[in-house]
Amino acid sequence: MKITLIGSGNVATHLGKNLVDVGHEIIQVFSRNLLKAKRLADEVDAEYINSLDNLSKDAELYIIAVKDDAIGPVAAKLEMLGMQQKLVVHTSGATPMSIFEKFANSMIRVGVFYPLQTFTKSRDLDFNGVPLCIDASSLDDRNLLTDLAYDISSEVYTIDDEQRACLHLAAVFVNNFTNHLYGIAAEILKSEDLDFEMLFPLIQETVDKLYAGTPKEMQTGPAIRNDQATIARHLDHLRENPEWQEIYRILTKNIQQSQ
Amino acid sequence: MKITLIGSGNVATHLGKNLVDVGHEIIQVFSRNLLKAKRLADEVDAEYINSLDNLSKDAELYIIAVKDDAIGPVAAKLEMLGMQQKLVVHTSGATPMSIFEKFANSMIRVGVFYPLQTFTKSRDLDFNGVPLCIDASSLDDRNLLTDLAYDISSEVYTIDDEQRACLHLAAVFVNNFTNHLYGIAAEILKSEDLDFEMLFPLIQETVDKLYAGTPKEMQTGPAIRNDQATIARHLDHLRENPEWQEIYRILTKNIQQSQ
Repeated sequence: MKITLIGSGNVATHLGKNLVDVGHEIIQVFSRNLLKAKRLADEVDAEYINSLDNLSKDAELYIIAVKDDAIGPVAAKLEMLGMQQKLVVHTSGATPMSIFEKFANSMIRVGVFYPLQTFTKSRDLDFNGVPLCIDASSLDDRNLLTDLAYDISSEVYTIDDEQRACLHLAAVFVNNFTNHLYGIAAEILKSEDLDFEMLFPLIQETVDKLYAGTPKEMQTGPAIRNDQATIARHLDHLRENPEWQEIYRILTKNIQQSQ
Repeated sequence: MKITLIGSGNVATHLGKNLVDVGHEIIQVFSRNLLKAKRLADEVDAEYINSLDNLSKDAELYIIAVKDDAIGPVAAKLEMLGMQQKLVVHTSGATPMSIFEKFANSMIRVGVFYPLQTFTKSRDLDFNGVPLCIDASSLDDRNLLTDLAYDISSEVYTIDDEQRACLHLAAVFVNNFTNHLYGIAAEILKSEDLDFEMLFPLIQETVDKLYAGTPKEMQTGPAIRNDQATIARHLDHLRENPEWQEIYRILTKNIQQSQ
């Protein structure tokens, strides 16, 4: 399939590379930053442009992988350029498909291609196994996107706006928030000159236990044991950082209420 | 080495099995619950007892792996039984070595053997790679415990009370709290009939990224982008659960303050 990437960030980069790897063709890469457009275009053997006015109409699929608040304006521009008959998708977990209606209501072939994963430019990532959450305004386009998704991953789901909003919120908890807790732990260890890597086996085992039972069944620690002495000692340890104390307190309370 | 296990919970079980696997001998297993004592004793080919009065003096090492608030009373009992010359350790991350002084100040060969890991009875766990945090009141015993620890793991550390308290607190953040966030995410998905396993690749990648940089460097998401529209939508999504809303709010705020 001939594909144009609008955007040159993490999602565009990883998606583009994986699509090319399985034989799809990226014909253009757009970024407002010409250097970034060129960098990705070179990797996927495409033309690069930094003005949407230079967008070719030869692509069968336009993937909008830009910041959430730029999706609407980009869609409006595509409408202005007469892309009504083209299949246009965005890749955002946080953005409903109805964004197209709102900004470009004459566009009829619209959809979503949301990879439920966190991307870092510096890390290569194999899409195989990454859940790809598909939606489209017509059954034909849903099928077309599903086929494309299966080319790069074994996990493909048809997901509506409501479900995608749920997934995105849940992803914030297991990725953004969890990563921040890792960061707090790293800081706590630093204060005693301990290496954060000492926690890696524990962090990995916490994940591996999810295969043995629900998180609720796997919950351990002072909160669930209601071990007041340890909780008090921990809160005292955190006394110089009231925000961390508050995080400790509220998570402990919520663990206890969840039983 | 001839070892007696005082306790039959997760730590005693996994530690006992791993020690036997590399050729050490468990001579007795104590638990107040005779059935539990027998169950573990059978696995490690030891005698089982449910009264400390029946404790043999033949062991070279007594490992106290009981609930934190029972460590002191058990130590006091060992003192009463005349175990002053025996090496006695506890396995608790939350308990200082000075607990022995407090409850049994004539005992001179005391120490700590703290495995920095989360244990589930139903899951076999290879200790190799698990950080073992050692302390003892004499250099000889520290060396003895270090040798023993290296028999079952390649990660052995001499860790004092202050450092161990730090590690234990950090472990609560990366294990207990993280696991609770997984639980919240699972509940959020359930409300839309989505399978929690859809998040597993994201959860694993969040961990894998720790090898690429510090958690702070790896932070992504609406909080760090200060994406107010998405944050507002997420908070609205959580409106029926004020506790989760509060967790979302405070973690978002702390991510933003940490930059």
